[in-house]
Amino acid sequence: MTALAATLAQIRAPDPRIAEATQQLLDAKTKPRRSLGRLEDLACRVAAIRGSTAPAPLHKAIVVMGADHGVAAEGVSAFPQEVTRQMLLNFARGGAAINVLARHAGARLVVADLGVVEALPDEPEIRADRIGPGTRNFAHGPAMTRGEAIAGLEAGIAIARELAGAGVTLLGTGEMGIGNTTAASALAAVLTGAPPEEVTGRGTGIGDDGLARKLAVIRQAIAVNRPDPEDPIDVLGKLGGFEIAGLAGLILGGAAAGIPIVVDGFICGAAALVAIRLAPRAAGYLVGSHRSVEIGHRRVLAALGVEPLLDLELRLGEGTGAALAMPLVDAALGILRDMATFAAAGVSDRDG
Amino acid sequence: MTALAATLAQIRAPDPRIAEATQQLLDAKTKPRRSLGRLEDLACRVAAIRGSTAPAPLHKAIVVMGADHGVAAEGVSAFPQEVTRQMLLNFARGGAAINVLARHAGARLVVADLGVVEALPDEPEIRADRIGPGTRNFAHGPAMTRGEAIAGLEAGIAIARELAGAGVTLLGTGEMGIGNTTAASALAAVLTGAPPEEVTGRGTGIGDDGLARKLAVIRQAIAVNRPDPEDPIDVLGKLGGFEIAGLAGLILGGAAAGIPIVVDGFICGAAALVAIRLAPRAAGYLVGSHRSVEIGHRRVLAALGVEPLLDLELRLGEGTGAALAMPLVDAALGILRDMATFAAAGVSDRDG
Repeated sequence: MTALAATLAQIRAPDPRIAEATQQLLDAKTKPRRSLGRLEDLACRVAAIRGSTAPAPLHKAIVVMGADHGVAAEGVSAFPQEVTRQMLLNFARGGAAINVLARHAGARLVVADLGVVEALPDEPEIRADRIGPGTRNFAHGPAMTRGEAIAGLEAGIAIARELAGAGVTLLGTGEMGIGNTTAASALAAVLTGAPPEEVTGRGTGIGDDGLARKLAVIRQAIAVNRPDPEDPIDVLGKLGGFEIAGLAGLILGGAAAGIPIVVDGFICGAAALVAIRLAPRAAGYLVGSHRSVEIGHRRVLAALGVEPLLDLELRLGEGTGAALAMPLVDAALGILRDMATFAAAGVSDRDG
Repeated sequence: MTALAATLAQIRAPDPRIAEATQQLLDAKTKPRRSLGRLEDLACRVAAIRGSTAPAPLHKAIVVMGADHGVAAEGVSAFPQEVTRQMLLNFARGGAAINVLARHAGARLVVADLGVVEALPDEPEIRADRIGPGTRNFAHGPAMTRGEAIAGLEAGIAIARELAGAGVTLLGTGEMGIGNTTAASALAAVLTGAPPEEVTGRGTGIGDDGLARKLAVIRQAIAVNRPDPEDPIDVLGKLGGFEIAGLAGLILGGAAAGIPIVVDGFICGAAALVAIRLAPRAAGYLVGSHRSVEIGHRRVLAALGVEPLLDLELRLGEGTGAALAMPLVDAALGILRDMATFAAAGVSDRDG
């Protein structure tokens, strides 16, 4: 059995009885029942994933995967392709938004090169998990081979297993790749069945002409490649990116290891969609971080069955939304762990 | 000049030039411009309030004020009145949701008794700032005298000044008071001009009969007391609560001291509305934390001109929403302080 097949077979749905028992514990705490709303849902979900109504404090890691996209040659991004590589170096040196926000969240930051065009210098802060020197331009043929897509998935699985082995109990996803909203939009269109114009937005900030070009490229890519919507690996290989494959694998590996995964924005959402099409039970491990400005994110979130925690008009990626949401996960578990019950605190309940 | 008048005279609008200069600094950071959305707005707002494009990390305090409400005798709450006092003791002993969430936010928790019916035992963790043993039932006459309303405002101002003197640079508001959504709804109706049914909700969880009773009580209170909407102290005295007066004062004192104030939910929102009617420039110091389930909160937020950061279906109060939002304020200032610029990181800008 391949690593991918073994991982898919290992994923179990989180136990709904643990979620229910957790809600009962929350209902005994000194507050009107359900008055912490979605924070209570979050506590129940994470407890079920961790398999305990009293989960230990979480050890957090955010994994940012970077790769280049052949489709950038079509002029679909506001930034030049060299920025992917420059930003990975910026992550390694601590100057990017995700560095700041991961530190605020108390999360370890793991940076992985899944395949930028020009390999990075030997940087201790960047993992080399390169599938190739960027994908091919999917406007004219598949972005990658099926074998490359599987290699990307398995690279992500390996990272998740390694982090789980090192004691990580909460994963966040992040990405960097000039052109990758084009890939994510193409994936979202095929996997959700949405017309491309409903899932294609301005990415880092292209104008009207750029948006029209991007949409034309996505339509052409779908027509040229004829991906099979029933075969997620086919769709991923033809229209995805190396970092998107890696992130889908990270989510599968996290789910197999019983770890909740805080999913960042639109591109990570597309990766999650690939993951849950491969293993529907992985959906129970997802925690939505934020609703992106990127137009296609709503459709992706609906397809994932995820309601995000934040709506701050973010459109940066890198895992910044995941980092901003992580303190809410900590807070939800803190409520479960540390609040007094009505009985212990001598507070009258409404029925008392 | 009274302490109240002196405070009102001291409040200056935050300098919009500092907000603009802060946005320029953010635009030079390694991210697409404005891609951190509302986090950038937050950084600009807080910088302007603090009077510096490079504000120091914030020292946080959440002030929870408790008081009893004569109107509780009308059966407008799902919980008995004794719960106000019990919960203040729960705050003092660390068992409530706000204890857990303030700790997660790195905020000092200050608990103040503005007037529960039965004075609390001598508890080092609870300040005694009592205006009286609970307000009178405003269904039949004013909740408090004008002098009591001013004393409540000045108690809050004194707490804000004391905390500012102790180095606090970010305030959060919280409250506890059985019956206080009834007071907040009455205040919101009069101060926004909304029909009572549009700003009256289920509080801690009353049923349909309770809601109808609550609404009838509010209508009666407005008819009996005839508050003058142009005189915020008159409205506060006739329909408010001691903790609401204290919180309005805290906001005014914070604004006078140049401190941003993270406003919790519906009841704190009503207090903020009193504050900005007394000093319209105080509006620039407010940071909205969350959008409450309580139906009247939308109208109050609109009247405050505040867009909250979170929408988590909370309806607990105590300052829990403020505590949950505080890490976002820290994160926003972290971005401003610690991110690299395009030039420093050697990353190509879109125009480069």
